[in-house]
Amino acid sequence: MSLTTRQASATQDSLLRVFTVPEEKESTLSRVEQEISENLEGFLQSHIVAVEKDLAEVEKDFADATIPSDPIFVSQQADFLLEKLVAHSVHTASPSFVGHMTSALPYFMLPLSKIMIALNQNLVKTETSKSFTPLERQVIGMLHRLVYNSDDGFYDTFMHDQNHALGAFCSGGTVANITALWAARNNAFAPTEDYPGIQKTGLMGGLLHYGYRGAAILVSERGHYSLKKTADVLGLGTDNIIAVPTNDNNQICLTSLGEKCQELVDNKIKILALVGVAGTTETGTVDPLNDMADIAEQYNCHFHVDGAWGAPTLFSKKYAPLLAGIERADSVTIDAHKQLYVPMGAGIVVFKSPSVLSGVEHHANYIIRKGSKDLGSKTLEGSRPGMAMLVHSGLKILGRSGYELLIEEGINKTHRFAAMIKNHSEFELCNEPTLNILTYRYCPQWVTEHLKTCDEASRIAINELLNRFTKYLQKIQRGHGKAFVSRTKLTPSYYQYQSIIVFRVVLANPLTSDDILADILAEQVVLANDDNEHTFMSQLRALVDAD
Amino acid sequence: MSLTTRQASATQDSLLRVFTVPEEKESTLSRVEQEISENLEGFLQSHIVAVEKDLAEVEKDFADATIPSDPIFVSQQADFLLEKLVAHSVHTASPSFVGHMTSALPYFMLPLSKIMIALNQNLVKTETSKSFTPLERQVIGMLHRLVYNSDDGFYDTFMHDQNHALGAFCSGGTVANITALWAARNNAFAPTEDYPGIQKTGLMGGLLHYGYRGAAILVSERGHYSLKKTADVLGLGTDNIIAVPTNDNNQICLTSLGEKCQELVDNKIKILALVGVAGTTETGTVDPLNDMADIAEQYNCHFHVDGAWGAPTLFSKKYAPLLAGIERADSVTIDAHKQLYVPMGAGIVVFKSPSVLSGVEHHANYIIRKGSKDLGSKTLEGSRPGMAMLVHSGLKILGRSGYELLIEEGINKTHRFAAMIKNHSEFELCNEPTLNILTYRYCPQWVTEHLKTCDEASRIAINELLNRFTKYLQKIQRGHGKAFVSRTKLTPSYYQYQSIIVFRVVLANPLTSDDILADILAEQVVLANDDNEHTFMSQLRALVDAD
Repeated sequence: MSLTTRQASATQDSLLRVFTVPEEKESTLSRVEQEISENLEGFLQSHIVAVEKDLAEVEKDFADATIPSDPIFVSQQADFLLEKLVAHSVHTASPSFVGHMTSALPYFMLPLSKIMIALNQNLVKTETSKSFTPLERQVIGMLHRLVYNSDDGFYDTFMHDQNHALGAFCSGGTVANITALWAARNNAFAPTEDYPGIQKTGLMGGLLHYGYRGAAILVSERGHYSLKKTADVLGLGTDNIIAVPTNDNNQICLTSLGEKCQELVDNKIKILALVGVAGTTETGTVDPLNDMADIAEQYNCHFHVDGAWGAPTLFSKKYAPLLAGIERADSVTIDAHKQLYVPMGAGIVVFKSPSVLSGVEHHANYIIRKGSKDLGSKTLEGSRPGMAMLVHSGLKILGRSGYELLIEEGINKTHRFAAMIKNHSEFELCNEPTLNILTYRYCPQWVTEHLKTCDEASRIAINELLNRFTKYLQKIQRGHGKAFVSRTKLTPSYYQYQSIIVFRVVLANPLTSDDILADILAEQVVLANDDNEHTFMSQLRALVDAD
Repeated sequence: MSLTTRQASATQDSLLRVFTVPEEKESTLSRVEQEISENLEGFLQSHIVAVEKDLAEVEKDFADATIPSDPIFVSQQADFLLEKLVAHSVHTASPSFVGHMTSALPYFMLPLSKIMIALNQNLVKTETSKSFTPLERQVIGMLHRLVYNSDDGFYDTFMHDQNHALGAFCSGGTVANITALWAARNNAFAPTEDYPGIQKTGLMGGLLHYGYRGAAILVSERGHYSLKKTADVLGLGTDNIIAVPTNDNNQICLTSLGEKCQELVDNKIKILALVGVAGTTETGTVDPLNDMADIAEQYNCHFHVDGAWGAPTLFSKKYAPLLAGIERADSVTIDAHKQLYVPMGAGIVVFKSPSVLSGVEHHANYIIRKGSKDLGSKTLEGSRPGMAMLVHSGLKILGRSGYELLIEEGINKTHRFAAMIKNHSEFELCNEPTLNILTYRYCPQWVTEHLKTCDEASRIAINELLNRFTKYLQKIQRGHGKAFVSRTKLTPSYYQYQSIIVFRVVLANPLTSDDILADILAEQVVLANDDNEHTFMSQLRALVDAD
C-alpha cells in the first residue's frame, strides 16, 4: 500500500476521529452500540446454550492469518462479530448451562464495566490508577477480613500501608495459586546472614544452603491442575506435587498425608506447603482444613487453601462451618469471577500475614520504586486492569446477605438435585454433594444392582461400557445445545478405584430452577434410550444378562 | 442479620431480578447506564490528567475493610464510583498524559467490549468459548504472521491444529515473557530416553542430568523488570539474569554479550536464552537483533525478543527495518494493550515453531484433555476472558495501514519533540529517540556547558542536585494535573556512568499535538523558575559559580 500525501492526511483525520469521543448521540458509533446492546439482550434472554454447529465449521470464519491492509467500518466489524462470533459462542449465562464454573452475571456488571474499560487504568502503579489503587487494596482487605476477620486496628494499620500487602489481585485462580506458592517457596529459602536468599540464587542455591535434597507440595489427588502447573513453573517439577489419596468423600486422607510428610522429612525433602482444597473442581469437596492446619504446624510449613471455588461459602452462616480451619491458612485463593459473580479475569489471593508477599517483591527505576504504594511490586503480573472495581461493586450492591442467599440457594438446590438423581431409576449419584457441585452418571438401577454383586471382570467390562456411554451422552447433549453438563473421571472406592467417567454439574446460576434440572435428566434419558447408532443400551443389557 | 422467611423470599426475588436482563428501556438500570455514559464522555473529553488530591485523602473513601451486610441500590454504587473513583482516577487517555505506555483507546473499543463482558466466555476451553477459541487462534496467527511471515500452507496447517500452538494469549507482557522463558527452560532440559524432563523432575534434576552447574538468561541492562521476576519465578534466581552493559545508544553491547556467553559456557552454566529488546521501556531503544540472533545460534540457545512495546513498529514499512532480525527470534512478546490500542489486559507471545509450547503442556480430567482444541493446555493462566476479540477488532477496523499511520506519526512526533528539546536553552535531551520514547531533563544550557568542562567532584554535585530537581519537577507537575511525564534513572557514558534522573516521555496517543508538548516544556520552565521553596535554581547557580 502506498498512500499519497492527500490520502495519508485524510486517513489520519479519520484515525484521530476514531480516538475521539463522539459528541453526537446520533453518531454511527451510537447506532452500532445500540445494535450491539439489542442483540446482546436477545442473546442473553434466550435459554439456549449453543447453536449446533461443528467447531471445524466455525473455524472457517477465522481462517485467514493475514491482517487486512485497509481499514473497515466499525459497523462491518460489529455485524461480523454478532453473526459469526456471538451467534456461535457459548451461552454461559443460560440457566441450563450447568457444566462449568462460569455463571450468569448480575446484570449491573455490564453498565459498570463500562467505567473500567473507558478509564483503562493500569493497576501496576498509582501514576496510572490513583484512586483505583486504594480501591483494590480495600477489596483485598474486605476479602482478607471475610477469611481471617482480624480486628479494625489490623486493617487500619496494614490495608493501605506501602510496605505491606494483605494479598494480590490476579487475572485468575491459577496465578493466585502460583503467587501463594511462589511466596511460600521464597520464604522457605529466605535470606540469612550468610545467604542472599532463593530470589537471588535460585532454587538450587536454596536447597544447597538449607541442606535439602528437594522441595515438595502436598495436595489431595482432587487438587486443581493449576498446582501441577505451579510446580512446573516454580522449578519444583510435577513429581514434587505429592498427590495424596482421598477418602470416600473425596477429602484428603489425613493418615496418608501424615505418612507422606514424615517420608519427605526423612528423605531430606523440604515441605514447602500443604494445600487444602475448599471446593474441589470435580466434586465440590472441602478438605478437613483444621486437621491439615495441625499437620502444617507440626511440619512447620506454609498452609495454603485453594478456595477459588468454595471460599465465598463463608458468606453463609449456615454453611461456613464446612470451611472451619480456613482462618488458620497462611494464604487463601478466591476467584472473584466464580462465586463473586464478576466477569472473567479476577482471582485474588489473601495472606494471613501482611509481610509474606515481601518474599516476592521486585522493583524498577521508573515505577514500583521502593516505598511507593504501587501494587505492582508484589504481583506476578505487571500491567493489570481495574477489575477490582467490579468486585467492589458486587460486594457493595449484593452485600453479605446477597451473597449469603446466592450461596445457600446454590447448595440447597444441589442437595435437591442429588435427591432427584437418587430417586431416579436410571441414574447413579457418584458423589454426595458438600457444596454446589455434584457428579452422577446414566446407570439404570438394574445395572447398579448388578454391579453390587457381579464379579470383577464383569464390573470392569460394564463400567468401561458405561464410560463410553457417558462420554457419548455428554457430547451429544452438548451438541444439541439445549443444556450443558460437563464430564470428568473419578476413581471411587466402591468400584475398587476403577476409573469411571461421570457427568459433572455446577449449580451457581440463581436462574437455574429445579424444573430445568429435571429437564436435563429427562433429555439424557431420551438420548440414552433413543440411541440407535451406538446401541449402548443393548450392549449393556447383554453384559448384565451374560452373568 | 437474621432474615425471616418472608424477607428472605423478597430478597431472593430481587436477587433473581439482578441476574435477569432488564426488559424495559426505561428501567433504573438503563437510566444508571445513561448517567455513567454521559459522565464518562465528560471525563474523556476533558484534557486534565488528574484532579489535584493527595492519595492519603483518596484513601479515606476506601478505608473500611468490612463488607456491608445489606445490599445497596445500583444507582448508589454508580454515584459512589463516579464521585469517588472516576473523579480521582488518572486520565490515561488525555493527550497531555505522556508519561507511561497507557494511551487513548479508539472509541469503538467501548461498545465492542460490551460483547466481551456480556458473553463472559472463558477461553481456557472450547466448552465455555466455542467460536472465541478459533478467533483467538486466528489473532495469534495474524501476529505470528506479522513477525515471521510464514507461508499460507504453514498457517493452514498449524493455526487451528489441536496439537500445535503459534503462541499464547496472556493477561500482559509479564506473563508473556514468563511463558516464553518457561518454554525455553523446559525445552533446554527436555525429556530424553533416560530422563523424564524438567517438567517432572524440576530444575535440580535437569541440571544434574544435563551436567550443568546452573542456568542463565542474558539481557541488556535496559531489559524490563519482568525478566528479573521471571528468573525468580522460574527458580533460576535473579543472579542468573545477566545484565549486559549497553552502548551509548542504550543498545546491548555485543562484545560484552559474547564475552559473558563464553564465560557462562566455560563455567558450565547453561545459557537458556538471550533476550533482545525491541523498544526498551525507558528509552525506546531496539537491540541489534540480527547480531543477537547470530550469537544465539552460536551458543545454541533460545532467542527471545521482548517486543511488548516495539513489535507493532513492524506495521510501518518506513520503520520496520529498525527491528531487522526479529524474524529470527524463537519467541516474541507483543502487548496488545500497548501499541495495538486495546484495553488493559492483553499480552501475546508468538513462537516461531508451533511445537515449542508443547514443553509447557498440562492436562486435566474435565477440561484441556489431550487432543482437545482447548487453549488452556498451553497457557500459564487458566480461566481467561475473550480479550482476543478486541485485538481482532483493532486489526480489522484499523487495518495494517491504520496501525502504520499510528506508529509513524508517533515516531515522527518523537523526533520533532527531540528537536524541540535540543533547541530549547533550558533542557537537555538524554537519549536520541529510536522509536516513540525519549528522555530529557531540565538543565539550562549554562549548566550543560559547565558540565562538559568541570571537574569530577563538581559534575557529581551538580548532577545530584539536578536529580533532586528533576524528581521535584516531575512530582509537582504530576500533582498539578495538567500534564504528566514520568521519570527514570539512566547512567550515560558522557557523565561517566553517574546515575541521572530524567523525565521520560512516551508518545503513543495520536491526540497529543506538538502544541501540547510545547506546553509541557513551558510548564516545566515555569515550575523550575518559580520554585521559592526549594531554591534549586539558586543552588544550581551557586554550584556552577563556585568553580
